[in-house]
Amino acid sequence: MSEEFVSTSVEQMEADAERLHLTAEQVGIDTWQDRVKNQTPHCKIGESGVCCRICAMGPCRITPKSPKGICGATADTIAGRNYLRMAAGGASAHSDHGRECVWKLYDATEDGYYHVTDATKLLNLAKEWNIPTEGRDMYDIAHEVAEAGLNEYGKIKGYQRWTERATEERREVWNELGILPRAVDREVVTAMHMTHMGCTADAEALVKQSLRTGLADGWGGSMAGTEFSDILYGTPMPKETEGNLGVLDKEMVNIICHGHDPAVSEMIVLVSETKEMQAYARSFGAKGINIVGLCCTANEIAMRHGVKMAGNFLQQENALLTGVVEAIVVDVQCIFPNIGPLSECFHTKFYTTSPIARIPYSEYLQLTSENAKEVATTIVKSACENFKNRDESKIFIPEHKHKASVGYSCEGIRSRLDTVTNSHLDELDTYKPLIECVRSGVIRGAVAMVGCNNPKVRPDYSHIEIMKKLIENDIVIVATGCAAQAASKAGLLDKRAKVLCGEGLRRVCTLADIPPVLHMGSCVDISRMMMLVTGIAKDWGIKTTELPVVGCAPEWMSEKAVSIANYVVATGIDTYLGIDPLVGGSEQMMNLITNGTKDWVGAGYVINTDPDELVKAIIEGIEKKRDALGI
Amino acid sequence: MSEEFVSTSVEQMEADAERLHLTAEQVGIDTWQDRVKNQTPHCKIGESGVCCRICAMGPCRITPKSPKGICGATADTIAGRNYLRMAAGGASAHSDHGRECVWKLYDATEDGYYHVTDATKLLNLAKEWNIPTEGRDMYDIAHEVAEAGLNEYGKIKGYQRWTERATEERREVWNELGILPRAVDREVVTAMHMTHMGCTADAEALVKQSLRTGLADGWGGSMAGTEFSDILYGTPMPKETEGNLGVLDKEMVNIICHGHDPAVSEMIVLVSETKEMQAYARSFGAKGINIVGLCCTANEIAMRHGVKMAGNFLQQENALLTGVVEAIVVDVQCIFPNIGPLSECFHTKFYTTSPIARIPYSEYLQLTSENAKEVATTIVKSACENFKNRDESKIFIPEHKHKASVGYSCEGIRSRLDTVTNSHLDELDTYKPLIECVRSGVIRGAVAMVGCNNPKVRPDYSHIEIMKKLIENDIVIVATGCAAQAASKAGLLDKRAKVLCGEGLRRVCTLADIPPVLHMGSCVDISRMMMLVTGIAKDWGIKTTELPVVGCAPEWMSEKAVSIANYVVATGIDTYLGIDPLVGGSEQMMNLITNGTKDWVGAGYVINTDPDELVKAIIEGIEKKRDALGI
Repeated sequence: MSEEFVSTSVEQMEADAERLHLTAEQVGIDTWQDRVKNQTPHCKIGESGVCCRICAMGPCRITPKSPKGICGATADTIAGRNYLRMAAGGASAHSDHGRECVWKLYDATEDGYYHVTDATKLLNLAKEWNIPTEGRDMYDIAHEVAEAGLNEYGKIKGYQRWTERATEERREVWNELGILPRAVDREVVTAMHMTHMGCTADAEALVKQSLRTGLADGWGGSMAGTEFSDILYGTPMPKETEGNLGVLDKEMVNIICHGHDPAVSEMIVLVSETKEMQAYARSFGAKGINIVGLCCTANEIAMRHGVKMAGNFLQQENALLTGVVEAIVVDVQCIFPNIGPLSECFHTKFYTTSPIARIPYSEYLQLTSENAKEVATTIVKSACENFKNRDESKIFIPEHKHKASVGYSCEGIRSRLDTVTNSHLDELDTYKPLIECVRSGVIRGAVAMVGCNNPKVRPDYSHIEIMKKLIENDIVIVATGCAAQAASKAGLLDKRAKVLCGEGLRRVCTLADIPPVLHMGSCVDISRMMMLVTGIAKDWGIKTTELPVVGCAPEWMSEKAVSIANYVVATGIDTYLGIDPLVGGSEQMMNLITNGTKDWVGAGYVINTDPDELVKAIIEGIEKKRDALGI
Repeated sequence: MSEEFVSTSVEQMEADAERLHLTAEQVGIDTWQDRVKNQTPHCKIGESGVCCRICAMGPCRITPKSPKGICGATADTIAGRNYLRMAAGGASAHSDHGRECVWKLYDATEDGYYHVTDATKLLNLAKEWNIPTEGRDMYDIAHEVAEAGLNEYGKIKGYQRWTERATEERREVWNELGILPRAVDREVVTAMHMTHMGCTADAEALVKQSLRTGLADGWGGSMAGTEFSDILYGTPMPKETEGNLGVLDKEMVNIICHGHDPAVSEMIVLVSETKEMQAYARSFGAKGINIVGLCCTANEIAMRHGVKMAGNFLQQENALLTGVVEAIVVDVQCIFPNIGPLSECFHTKFYTTSPIARIPYSEYLQLTSENAKEVATTIVKSACENFKNRDESKIFIPEHKHKASVGYSCEGIRSRLDTVTNSHLDELDTYKPLIECVRSGVIRGAVAMVGCNNPKVRPDYSHIEIMKKLIENDIVIVATGCAAQAASKAGLLDKRAKVLCGEGLRRVCTLADIPPVLHMGSCVDISRMMMLVTGIAKDWGIKTTELPVVGCAPEWMSEKAVSIANYVVATGIDTYLGIDPLVGGSEQMMNLITNGTKDWVGAGYVINTDPDELVKAIIEGIEKKRDALGI
């Protein structure tokens, strides 16, 4: 116990943001705070999901005076179709990110830029998929596994292979309900077809296809994203880093990696760590190169390399407003188009690298398996050269940052659990020690905190306050995406944050040497959470629906979150949402997603936009599951 | 020349609709006319494409006071993303319809319900795709060809095989521009990913992906739909039928087939023609069974069996309002959800048959390759039994109908051209006689009339008046979908309609024994039009962009039309739109789709919501192409 642990408050973060906003005013650029003011109040009809723009007869809007669209679509139909399209958009994004990871392994060679790093994981997957490994070259195996992985996106027949990892009970439920997912891309196209003008009008069928599309993502494309990233870049294991804007360093060349797909950021990290490049940075008067991450790209490289995390979704403009960012390089998803004009107000270079995310006011350097190192080198070099172009009058770096223990993949979690296992008596590499803690009540349950930031609620407040309340109540947290980043900013990934926990969880944190919030990765890594609950259910011998485990997305905003919420619910885990799922204009839809899915898959949404009430509901939900188990 | 030919006017059709609306009032149901009143005026922001509902921070709306969404997306970004999503929705619908056709061939057996009908077309396609045919069982070949066809939807690598049918010049243009389409489903997912929150913000990239997604449909999924339907159900050849509501018969059991995929309607036609079923109908006092079609299902079965066509999109409620429809059976797309409550006001039975189009207030009988005949039998029988349940007080059948010559597939057109060829001197089965007519100026050019109905313009008026004006100016018309149906209602598919033509076209109609408007099929059959312009360009030895041929969608409304417009433009054919493409709020987008694409692919949109001005522009466009060719 060195210094005392003090969590950074949301108020302190807001004060930092306000100070940075002065710089925005100074350079004459708008930020999300300004734009929220202009865009508020939102169109109530759109917000409640009953505006239909699916054909050009409209837009049609459901109101008491106009209860049907021109085709006769009701509020239920319109809200249902919009909801399914959100799931389809999210599944597309996540799964296509996954596909890119698979391609990188397909392209990997001994001499190339992408390699097999976790050979064990590759061999395990090959075994799982009945691909011969004995006496074969590692890269031959890799290519065959990758081809099989790619096949899951477009295969003509059969169900998603990744679902075979789920419990038998889940597969039966999915099969019975007709939602066992087929090829990933096909489920998206089916969703788009069903929601086309003049196709499915029945809300039940639309919600079922939302579940199926979600499953194709969570037990398909996203899982591919996680698994193939691990094979390529290594399976994350516990390690230390830091989080929040204070990780930017005035003395260093700062390069921000932003987005989701680690293919770019891995290469930037690799190149920037070379002696040659560090020397190049010093030649321009910097002390070195400081790579930091934003959003899920941050999560990816923090989990694998301990790279520092500058923050989450609504922090992306703030990071540039510090005035010390020489380059921001992005891959895909969650990139504000405003990064373009904003970077123009500074010396900051803005690089786009993917045909999926072409953004005005950026320099586009498409990264491929063949040119990855050259592209990364160009970017890092130009950032170094750009160090001298800073404008001192625009510089302000907030001080706040926290230590953060990250890298809690399933393997990482089990490795920590092994340390509290009597290796002479007990089986290693299981979730049994954790299950014992939950059964005995030392830990009451677990919450998967996920999702984005959304200005509809006070940003990060819901994440942080819910997490604090949960750990205080001996509920352990696994977190990904912007939720994990919020935890990092508040210091909840610091092992010393155990002081905020109830007695039981605090003891577990001490014994296992873990923080109370376990950072499991990026948003595609919610597939890790699915494997975690599946592993726990199997080791415990009960159904996933019986586990005192829930999901919570208190500040979600992206379509990916809709896809995720669907597969989490389909996996049997109740999901607590702090943002309305844009179907409020349809009573039938609201009922289907909160109660209807319970009848089908044993779980549903609980929606409450008040974080205090939401966390109360979560705790009640967990205690109810405990009661049902008689523990 | 028997009776004199008089075209039914739009005024007469409107009077019929008004009379039927009295019945709607009588039974207490709303129709599209009522709903349009309630939904007008439309939200101007949505209509101009600058309302963004892609993430849950919004909806955000671009106005002078709020020029950016919360993420910073501009009007260009938002309109561009919405536009690409429309193309993706349309490509999904059309291509997925195509996929179902391929599956039917995959399932076809000698003893099953689906068979190889056009063996020549199957063998040609097998040859095209290097699939061995020599000495093989026809169904073995069929299954291998079908598997290859299905593979085009999900294959991991390579470009769409169907594009090899295009001119070399087009393929080069597409390749150069990076829009040569890959697997159909992949292009949809790419489109959905690019338009996800935080991905592509650059309007140019969004329009290019719209072209690519369109090409994956027109030179992919839709072409599969057409080709495999022809193999299964026969390639359409010229035949006679009738069109408009007058085809309903008070003395008969009336069954309406509505939707797009012919798998259901083919079986209904087959079953209803059996002696047994005709006798069953008579046993209930009917004179027999009268199968009629609506929308594109009408086009499919009219083209192949001469089944009568009750009408197009905005006629679907009118058809039921006649009170003489015993059953309406639908497959997918363009089905008003209002058919549900409307059929409840009559004795009419409403059957849905596809998981893609689940609609409340219908009986759902999922049709598969294995149960197709049983499902069709159940429906036809129940319709017969339902004959006695009519309510005489609700019956009114408008008298108007016209003879219609249909079945002008590419093969059908060439077969007519062969009749004016000197078989001793000239090559048969080419477009050369037509090219000669165009070169000499006897025919000035051709217009592909396509698209839907849209109450934003006076329904059918644009279709009919534009077509009349064009044929008067010696411009021959090929038509599909609702445009073809509008022509049928106005009598323009009647060979005697040549009296409305200019002298040149009239002579050609007489010599080739064709009507001035050639019905080429349903909306997936716009792929036939692509093969037609490709065939003409090849036979002529010029580029598709040089042909005095344009496309025109004066009343489009569905996302399919956006996909179509994109592939027609990408094929080098200017496309004239009578409905704004919902991007009016972005100057950059308007410029890209009208001018920008010209630089890329040599064609673009011309938009004019006034049909008189639109037809003037078309004629000018064609004459300009002629001038450039020096003809």
